[in-house]
Amino acid sequence: MDSSERIPPAELADFTEIPRTVTTGTLYGVGMGPGDPDYLTVRAMKVLAEAPVLVHFCKKGRRGNSRTIADAVMCDPARELALVYPYTTELHPEHPDYVSALAAFYDDAASRLADHLGAGRDVAILSEGDPFFYGSFMHLWRRLKDHFPVEVVPGVTGMSGCWTRAGTPITWGDDVLTILPATLGHEALVERLRITDAAVIMKLGRHLPKVRMALAETGLLDRAVYVERGTMAGEKVIALADKPDDAAPYFSMVLVPGEGRRP
Amino acid sequence: MDSSERIPPAELADFTEIPRTVTTGTLYGVGMGPGDPDYLTVRAMKVLAEAPVLVHFCKKGRRGNSRTIADAVMCDPARELALVYPYTTELHPEHPDYVSALAAFYDDAASRLADHLGAGRDVAILSEGDPFFYGSFMHLWRRLKDHFPVEVVPGVTGMSGCWTRAGTPITWGDDVLTILPATLGHEALVERLRITDAAVIMKLGRHLPKVRMALAETGLLDRAVYVERGTMAGEKVIALADKPDDAAPYFSMVLVPGEGRRP
Repeated sequence: MDSSERIPPAELADFTEIPRTVTTGTLYGVGMGPGDPDYLTVRAMKVLAEAPVLVHFCKKGRRGNSRTIADAVMCDPARELALVYPYTTELHPEHPDYVSALAAFYDDAASRLADHLGAGRDVAILSEGDPFFYGSFMHLWRRLKDHFPVEVVPGVTGMSGCWTRAGTPITWGDDVLTILPATLGHEALVERLRITDAAVIMKLGRHLPKVRMALAETGLLDRAVYVERGTMAGEKVIALADKPDDAAPYFSMVLVPGEGRRP
Repeated sequence: MDSSERIPPAELADFTEIPRTVTTGTLYGVGMGPGDPDYLTVRAMKVLAEAPVLVHFCKKGRRGNSRTIADAVMCDPARELALVYPYTTELHPEHPDYVSALAAFYDDAASRLADHLGAGRDVAILSEGDPFFYGSFMHLWRRLKDHFPVEVVPGVTGMSGCWTRAGTPITWGDDVLTILPATLGHEALVERLRITDAAVIMKLGRHLPKVRMALAETGLLDRAVYVERGTMAGEKVIALADKPDDAAPYFSMVLVPGEGRRP
């Protein structure tokens, strides 16, 4: 991606006026792992058990996946705060209306969390996988990090969960691994696949036909594995070449395992 | 890496003659996370608590790092089995003598573990980070997987631990992330850095001067962060441009955070 195409960050909110009569709470970004609650970390379990405010992201009318993972450890609705994404499926993620709607959503959410933090209540944001790896948490962290103490709890990524359940090591020896969003154009995918030893292709959705073509063009289709809902209920693992259709939900990815040094 | 340069896999050992008078044990690859034992998963804790044979890799005269992480949960020396790597620091990893020494080491180790598994004892191999991501575990898994039941427990990777402690998200929006071993040549590093949005450069060791040059040539040096022993005792985080020397131990890496979509 050319840096000239990037959208400049919105003006960050200013929470400096919060009265400091109480000790402020800590903002936690909690990595919830790939799906199976057994892959939560010891630290995540402790934060989830103790934080008075537990925040998760979700779509309107649906339960967020990070919240489902948390079922194993939480059962107190009074502690929960759901952040419902604005309805945006009709717009491209780089469309100005989408960007401004999301910015307003994150600004508003940050303001609500700042109220809790300013009143001395710890706030834990449930983040699928690892909080600093393509997470919505990062957009709240960016707005709040200079005003409140922060602790990020790293998590097992969704891709680790997928290659574990696919039963295949992803990298050996000196393999190069490239993680690609399927939203890239065909040429951009091909250019990057040509010079990598292993790949993870995420955000498949309607892009699977393009991904198949790019893998075929680079001679990688026969090595590619499709994984859907890795470590979760309804998990599917199949060689991509054997997958009969191009349906791919959000929690799906394509893995191209490396073949490096194996003494 | 050109596939023509790869070393063909050694003949795999044959354990099919093991008498099936007892139920065989299960081989576990246990992801030990980045270093801080609080980042072990719930599943890893359970396997470590129960498996009668706990295996770790180490260098002669030194304690393995995965074993150090396990200090928090294990204290029974009778369950421990240390696999000591053959002395190989004088040879390049692709030198035929190195490859054959390592192959013999893994063959011998697999045979020792097969004795335990064949006798019905579960064997857990402690793996730094995630077992299927550049792990020595994979070399034993490859030799044993067709003969015994296997469970891999994914772990938080070392790189997640490093970007967490560096306090920086690694990827935003549609960023491409490339994971590169510093052992690549200068031109290969530059070629891959030119077309990525974010990077993790591992296995630094004596390669740090070359990595600096490649980052400078691709305009990424000012964004690069050096992290040593992330989440462990002796952790260091410093902007690479501010690091005064080129000393880099095994547990160090360079992060180049992405700068993608931030509504």
